[in-house]
Amino acid sequence: MARIALDVMGTDRGPAEMVAGALMAVERGQEVVLVGRRDVVEPELLASGSDLELVHAPEVVEMGDSPAQALRDKPGSSVLTAARLVASGKADALVSAGSTGAAMAAASIVIGRLKGVLRPAIATSIPRPGSPSLLLDSGANLEVRPVHLLQFGIMGSLLAEIVYGMVRPRVALLNIGSEPAKGRDLERSAFRLLEEAPVNFVGNVEGGDITGDTADVFVTDGFTGNVALKTIEAAAGVVVRLVNTSFIDLPPDVSPHVAAPMGELHKVINPERYGGAHLVGTSAGVVICHGSSSRNAILNAIRLATEGVKGGLVERLERGLVGP
Amino acid sequence: MARIALDVMGTDRGPAEMVAGALMAVERGQEVVLVGRRDVVEPELLASGSDLELVHAPEVVEMGDSPAQALRDKPGSSVLTAARLVASGKADALVSAGSTGAAMAAASIVIGRLKGVLRPAIATSIPRPGSPSLLLDSGANLEVRPVHLLQFGIMGSLLAEIVYGMVRPRVALLNIGSEPAKGRDLERSAFRLLEEAPVNFVGNVEGGDITGDTADVFVTDGFTGNVALKTIEAAAGVVVRLVNTSFIDLPPDVSPHVAAPMGELHKVINPERYGGAHLVGTSAGVVICHGSSSRNAILNAIRLATEGVKGGLVERLERGLVGP
Repeated sequence: MARIALDVMGTDRGPAEMVAGALMAVERGQEVVLVGRRDVVEPELLASGSDLELVHAPEVVEMGDSPAQALRDKPGSSVLTAARLVASGKADALVSAGSTGAAMAAASIVIGRLKGVLRPAIATSIPRPGSPSLLLDSGANLEVRPVHLLQFGIMGSLLAEIVYGMVRPRVALLNIGSEPAKGRDLERSAFRLLEEAPVNFVGNVEGGDITGDTADVFVTDGFTGNVALKTIEAAAGVVVRLVNTSFIDLPPDVSPHVAAPMGELHKVINPERYGGAHLVGTSAGVVICHGSSSRNAILNAIRLATEGVKGGLVERLERGLVGP
Repeated sequence: MARIALDVMGTDRGPAEMVAGALMAVERGQEVVLVGRRDVVEPELLASGSDLELVHAPEVVEMGDSPAQALRDKPGSSVLTAARLVASGKADALVSAGSTGAAMAAASIVIGRLKGVLRPAIATSIPRPGSPSLLLDSGANLEVRPVHLLQFGIMGSLLAEIVYGMVRPRVALLNIGSEPAKGRDLERSAFRLLEEAPVNFVGNVEGGDITGDTADVFVTDGFTGNVALKTIEAAAGVVVRLVNTSFIDLPPDVSPHVAAPMGELHKVINPERYGGAHLVGTSAGVVICHGSSSRNAILNAIRLATEGVKGGLVERLERGLVGP
């Protein structure tokens, strides 16, 4: 089995939404242990008649807290407590929708990094027709060196193979043009490193390619990746809202015909489809979710973490990083 | 009148498409002088029966050329020749769809910068319901210092007032979260400078806000801006294609009802709507277009440049930068 430690505190929608997602996951056969303040979480469990295990954590890292300072000042925080459950083997993976910085720091300090990994990275699945693409880093490391981008490419390639069953996933460097000399010093150096790396490197691509089919794994620094990710989600959402608005005034006999294809569309581009993103490079599974995650997103994040554990994601990443 | 020097060389679709855009603009009362190789452009003019003025430029900067080297090695290039027409007062503004780097370099060297401007920036209009937002820099300066972002904010605010008639446009700093401490050292320092600046600074925003309504002018470095811009265009395009595909199998009596709202949607998010982007901070009007611009995009770019000249964009920017 795969036992998921779910940090239920410090999110935008509050612990009730997190508990609801956990209960949905448990109903579907997943194994979850909740981590949070007993006085807040227990009433939710009582109300739902569930006997789901709860590990009490008296403190909460808030979104506005400085991650490093919060971990120092709040040793009893839910995110640190959940990370400790994973580090001690009482759980197999951590899922958090609280402060991303705090979850990353807790993972790095308490769970630790795989041998040779300089910087764990957030690998976000971007929905597109067919299989998704992976964007990393999408927010963990705002400033990086070329060797970090090299490692993101190697880890992303392994992740695409393991999680999505891709064969020789195409790895691309996010840039402002396709020529090798394009970009900042960072991209020019990373280009040369990726050319020599044991991945199927297809060269530089532009922002528009992330939602296209020219590559499967998109490598960039965490600042650019975070902006690109949020931009994609919002731009897709704007168009969907415009389409919906345009169709409000359709005659009643026409609307049903439009509803079905629109439903399909929502399924393809639904940002909750994957629920969360793997933090790759840590010694155990860590899945990071949006602060505003709904119960459905949390359900999918727990599923993502469970599949990672069952598929031996961390062990296979470790072997892949060492090389054959 | 506003006389536009159009560099017709070095684009993806070739000079014929550029000439076609120019002819459409002239038909609509704009004044254009073409700049390019006579042997290539003259047959196009003859075929169309037009007597549009052509200034011969024997050399062409190609997309793959290093901009700095190309300008040194090709003094007779179309982009330099067009910039010289503007610098000498024989034309009022430059429009180019060739190498962005070469157009910027030609503008900086030949046309020059407004007093006090450290780095001209590309200000791209992002379509959204209602008035567009402005993103700058969207590709001119890949690496910047905080003072550059400050100037982008001031120039962007003036541009929004002058071109879109906005009152106290809301200026935001593109970042990975809203708190002042978020981001790289670059954003943290720029935040403090923008707080003190004579603009309506509304703080940090995320990538998703560019297509929303929390601000009007979005300030970032040229690398991030370029990735964000191309990401938005592509993500919107993907959704539109998905919608179109979903609607292929609608019954014939339903399709006409869907066609009208889809047509409206295309109009709102059409990336050719503005055709090009102002390079702000130069001593005369410069409009930069996509290398793949269609004749419609070129028509709109010429219109954008013409409106800039007639509205006194450069003079008003100059006054605004000096302060009251």
